[in-house]
Amino acid sequence: MINVGVVGGTGYAGSELVRILSRHTQAEVKILTSKSYTGQNFDNIFENFKNVCDLECLECNLEEIAEKVDIVFFALPHGIVSQRITKKILKKTKVIDLGADFRLKSKIEYEKWYKTKHHCSELLGDAVYGLSEWNRKKIKNADLVANPGCFPTSSLLGIIPLIKDGIIDAENIIIDAKSGVTGAGRSLSLGIHYTECNESLKAYKVTSHHHTPEIEQELSGIAGKKVTVTFTPHLIPMNRGILSTIYCKLKQGTEYEEIKDIYENHYGDEYFIRLTKSGVYPETKWVKGSNFCDIGFSIDNRTGNLIIISAIDNMVKGAAGQAVQNMNIMFGFEETMGLKTVPIFPV
Amino acid sequence: MINVGVVGGTGYAGSELVRILSRHTQAEVKILTSKSYTGQNFDNIFENFKNVCDLECLECNLEEIAEKVDIVFFALPHGIVSQRITKKILKKTKVIDLGADFRLKSKIEYEKWYKTKHHCSELLGDAVYGLSEWNRKKIKNADLVANPGCFPTSSLLGIIPLIKDGIIDAENIIIDAKSGVTGAGRSLSLGIHYTECNESLKAYKVTSHHHTPEIEQELSGIAGKKVTVTFTPHLIPMNRGILSTIYCKLKQGTEYEEIKDIYENHYGDEYFIRLTKSGVYPETKWVKGSNFCDIGFSIDNRTGNLIIISAIDNMVKGAAGQAVQNMNIMFGFEETMGLKTVPIFPV
Amino acid sequence: MINVGVVGGTGYAGSELVRILSRHTQAEVKILTSKSYTGQNFDNIFENFKNVCDLECLECNLEEIAEKVDIVFFALPHGIVSQRITKKILKKTKVIDLGADFRLKSKIEYEKWYKTKHHCSELLGDAVYGLSEWNRKKIKNADLVANPGCFPTSSLLGIIPLIKDGIIDAENIIIDAKSGVTGAGRSLSLGIHYTECNESLKAYKVTSHHHTPEIEQELSGIAGKKVTVTFTPHLIPMNRGILSTIYCKLKQGTEYEEIKDIYENHYGDEYFIRLTKSGVYPETKWVKGSNFCDIGFSIDNRTGNLIIISAIDNMVKGAAGQAVQNMNIMFGFEETMGLKTVPIFPV
Amino acid sequence: MINVGVVGGTGYAGSELVRILSRHTQAEVKILTSKSYTGQNFDNIFENFKNVCDLECLECNLEEIAEKVDIVFFALPHGIVSQRITKKILKKTKVIDLGADFRLKSKIEYEKWYKTKHHCSELLGDAVYGLSEWNRKKIKNADLVANPGCFPTSSLLGIIPLIKDGIIDAENIIIDAKSGVTGAGRSLSLGIHYTECNESLKAYKVTSHHHTPEIEQELSGIAGKKVTVTFTPHLIPMNRGILSTIYCKLKQGTEYEEIKDIYENHYGDEYFIRLTKSGVYPETKWVKGSNFCDIGFSIDNRTGNLIIISAIDNMVKGAAGQAVQNMNIMFGFEETMGLKTVPIFPV
Repeated sequence: MINVGVVGGTGYAGSELVRILSRHTQAEVKILTSKSYTGQNFDNIFENFKNVCDLECLECNLEEIAEKVDIVFFALPHGIVSQRITKKILKKTKVIDLGADFRLKSKIEYEKWYKTKHHCSELLGDAVYGLSEWNRKKIKNADLVANPGCFPTSSLLGIIPLIKDGIIDAENIIIDAKSGVTGAGRSLSLGIHYTECNESLKAYKVTSHHHTPEIEQELSGIAGKKVTVTFTPHLIPMNRGILSTIYCKLKQGTEYEEIKDIYENHYGDEYFIRLTKSGVYPETKWVKGSNFCDIGFSIDNRTGNLIIISAIDNMVKGAAGQAVQNMNIMFGFEETMGLKTVPIFPV
Repeated sequence: MINVGVVGGTGYAGSELVRILSRHTQAEVKILTSKSYTGQNFDNIFENFKNVCDLECLECNLEEIAEKVDIVFFALPHGIVSQRITKKILKKTKVIDLGADFRLKSKIEYEKWYKTKHHCSELLGDAVYGLSEWNRKKIKNADLVANPGCFPTSSLLGIIPLIKDGIIDAENIIIDAKSGVTGAGRSLSLGIHYTECNESLKAYKVTSHHHTPEIEQELSGIAGKKVTVTFTPHLIPMNRGILSTIYCKLKQGTEYEEIKDIYENHYGDEYFIRLTKSGVYPETKWVKGSNFCDIGFSIDNRTGNLIIISAIDNMVKGAAGQAVQNMNIMFGFEETMGLKTVPIFPV
Repeated sequence: MINVGVVGGTGYAGSELVRILSRHTQAEVKILTSKSYTGQNFDNIFENFKNVCDLECLECNLEEIAEKVDIVFFALPHGIVSQRITKKILKKTKVIDLGADFRLKSKIEYEKWYKTKHHCSELLGDAVYGLSEWNRKKIKNADLVANPGCFPTSSLLGIIPLIKDGIIDAENIIIDAKSGVTGAGRSLSLGIHYTECNESLKAYKVTSHHHTPEIEQELSGIAGKKVTVTFTPHLIPMNRGILSTIYCKLKQGTEYEEIKDIYENHYGDEYFIRLTKSGVYPETKWVKGSNFCDIGFSIDNRTGNLIIISAIDNMVKGAAGQAVQNMNIMFGFEETMGLKTVPIFPV
Repeated sequence: MINVGVVGGTGYAGSELVRILSRHTQAEVKILTSKSYTGQNFDNIFENFKNVCDLECLECNLEEIAEKVDIVFFALPHGIVSQRITKKILKKTKVIDLGADFRLKSKIEYEKWYKTKHHCSELLGDAVYGLSEWNRKKIKNADLVANPGCFPTSSLLGIIPLIKDGIIDAENIIIDAKSGVTGAGRSLSLGIHYTECNESLKAYKVTSHHHTPEIEQELSGIAGKKVTVTFTPHLIPMNRGILSTIYCKLKQGTEYEEIKDIYENHYGDEYFIRLTKSGVYPETKWVKGSNFCDIGFSIDNRTGNLIIISAIDNMVKGAAGQAVQNMNIMFGFEETMGLKTVPIFPV
């Protein structure tokens, strides 16, 4: 049994972590911190946790926490973790950062897209990008895992096999992503005030979303050359879920079965990745509450485009679930431990 | 490990049963039947079950099923189970009926409210009303459990302690109940077509809902005299959850603490019943996906009314969850087995 | 053609006023004020108004406004109007206050329920309660109209005829009201953050909502004696609409037709009040975007209770629409002017 | 004043037509037909029309209707109008078909994409495609107008100016469209059962949606060469609205201002087309209930892609509203007559 600390436990990602870990048989949340709710009991803030978790939310004294736990999950807005984390802390405890601070290898890119300073670029090289299905070996030995963003997770899992096997044109990838509102977090803002986003639909941060360089970095790494993508996120009036519709130029003459084979070769043994049958496409409802990523595709013979569709629960595979999957890898637990939930439907 | 059959597995209550039982360590679904989807695999109908349950949906041959399983759950529209079940079958297997056919003790009342014939009145006396927290002893020895309706569950758990302790006027109970749309099931009908009920609100079956006599029967049994209630259900544009707002005339001069004590005396040791603090009221979001029933109340000193508010997930505590809780009682398993899930929020 | 000023034009009630007045042939909004958006153009804040209204939002200089317009609508949080309005201003312009400051005749009651000081009790006697269908004569000659609250409008229109004709027990009225989220306004707060209230349901301000004394005051006036009500509002995950389910003790032996006659006598000539047929109950979708109030009822013969159901659009008949109806009355325009819209469905 | 017939008045498009025409000062619905509701009054089916329209729904006797009205709107599923309409009928009355039967010029394409026979190919040449802003002259003199589909309307209005001015590559257009559920109509089907599509998101008819050839036909006509598009529609859990996100390869070096100028040149005088400011993107909420089409765009300098976003109300500009706009053109009324409504927000 390992001891866990959650820093930033009262945002949505943090509370989802506590929920998932509550059914983990080898890990237990011992310390929870929260800036906004210091001194309050967790089940008074999130009443769903009554009879389950009444830990008191503490201030974050990182040195002290690092002494007491085997792993710390950070679930904070970007720009904070890079101010707090040090090599010394990483010697005492393992860290999974659900935020963005250690995802980009380039300080310059980070500062350009996030419009804030990075305070700990010396650790950028050590951090391992935690896309579990593709980086297992590195994750296993990492002290600091940068948990992928929700949009990158859903995009990369759909695209990587095709880039890897060279079946699509790396120059021409368009990702049209749609996210439920939990993706925007729990902090108040007019755009996610109920009556402002309910029953409406919009694109946001068009051509400027900070998940763009994260997707490009990982694809470029696989492709062995610079890959650029056009990425457009949309806000959907629902709580959970991301659906990414991905458009690529297919190598001429590629058949359905070839692509199917590629996915099956790469993902056939993956518990969390489910490939839909021909003519069936992923829907976010089928993955809700689970760590699954569903992937389907269609070839548009008339235009030569390949359309890939992937669905995840942004709070689970897109955040807390993948973080726990990474923890399982880091500590040698069975990778699915605590994560074998049936998606809940209808909910 | 016991073997389970689910008859009517492709409605919402049936699929929720399969979901809950998939995490039960002492019970396993071996047979699933479905009239509408005979011959299809369960995970093709409900894609959330991919990698989890691919049982083939069979025709319902009850004699045969009864030979093979330790318990059969029926999740069918009312009027069917009473045509199929026999004493002979009950000798071979235990039965929990999630439908209404064995809830009312009176054939006359049943036929009046359900507007259909009852075909098996000889078993009405044997059936045990499965309100787990109040009927444990009888459930333990029952062969046939009539699982309570969703509205009755949420209403009765709120009212019974007060009737039992004689603190409210049994003549004057008004239940204003609000349900999510899963309560209406998976069969198509204009009223639950997305664009007909989304963003709107209505009462339905005003003064004529068939859960009324079920509530009255149970309260009358506790009160030792005929209790009548006014019951008005409403359809709420959301998937899951029931909130019941219950109005009673309070015995004059009753104080907050007295009522609190009554609830605590009856429910203090109940895992699934959670009492909210003073000034805090249940919300359906806090119980979603779980078997919890949250109860809160307020005294309206100006009018002498007591307002009780109770929240459940209609699919879990109001159907499949309570059914599993009853199964646990019947087979001597720990009562919470398979049911200790944290409610999922936001979802 | 009259000139109109709207103070507080960038809340939901204010913008709804501007929308309704934009199709009024005898009134034109000339001045719009907003504290939060001073200096900005209205159609930059509410992009629905592009090509329709690009007035600049001004600071509120009431003296100056009063000189320029024939009527001022206030759409402000409570407690502000009573600080600003004076007899002098009312000599220059007519006023309709969509807020609560002049609805209660008793300063004591106001201060008790609103927990704030009232600064202008000398005008409480002059203010006319603007329930259009019942107070036309007084409204016609009023300088200051207190526009009714949304819950009181829907409740009172359903109850008054029955109190007036003495067919129900004035001691035992229970109002279980359900409102869409626009009722909570445009100011940010955790409870109406999208992911906090979507797909959930709750009661709030149980036994303590400030619309209670407003309902009681008006009913008491009609009854000629003190009437108390138990009032419980609920928040429904939808944008617009209020449904009130009202429970009354009926005079013994009253038949359906008697009640129907009472409603028809009082409302048969009212354009904005529509009575549903027997067995049909109001739904908020049928009144959306309109000034209609739909009313239906059922007698629960088993308990002697009458259940009245009324539906309005909280933003129209419950706020801006009734305000324009009152303006029409005050200026001698046809009462339905600018308000004869077909409810929009599905929306 | 002209007389109007609506054939298929009890679907959503039909009832929206009746709603819009109810505020038209020069046209009046005289005849309404409905197969499903023959003999019933319109306001019993759609209770929003109480006090507004109580026409009896008739059987469709087209010969007879043609004698009595100046124009017939058809709002029927595809495949029916082509069986009924004749040259003889078009001599008696003008026709606007809101369905798909006369949109495609090619019988072959129609039969391929709609998988049904076309019964009246002799009229395909006479039918005018009713994209009001682009085909005014032809519409003015047409006897038979094929009203555009909802997705084509929103796509074409965004793309045409750029194709016309040759600023984008006609080979590489990707349209990722998102529609509210009203787009799927009022007929029951599991996919639009409330609890099946609420809180979820999916793509459908990927690479096979029948609006694809309609878009291609019109773009090809403008471009003067064969244009192909990849078109992917998505179902969004909301009632109304379409948002189309369109990706094109931009001619190298094109600047923001050039594109802005193109749009302004083409649309500067169009009442119903509103261009958003730089950095602001259309949202469906801002056009709801109105005939507006909002268009915005961004250049992705990193990839050379242009992203165009357009929003319409699928029931208005995407169906009934544009039909009335076309009627206005055909009869020489002011083009905006009956259509100058402010979008309603929040709703």
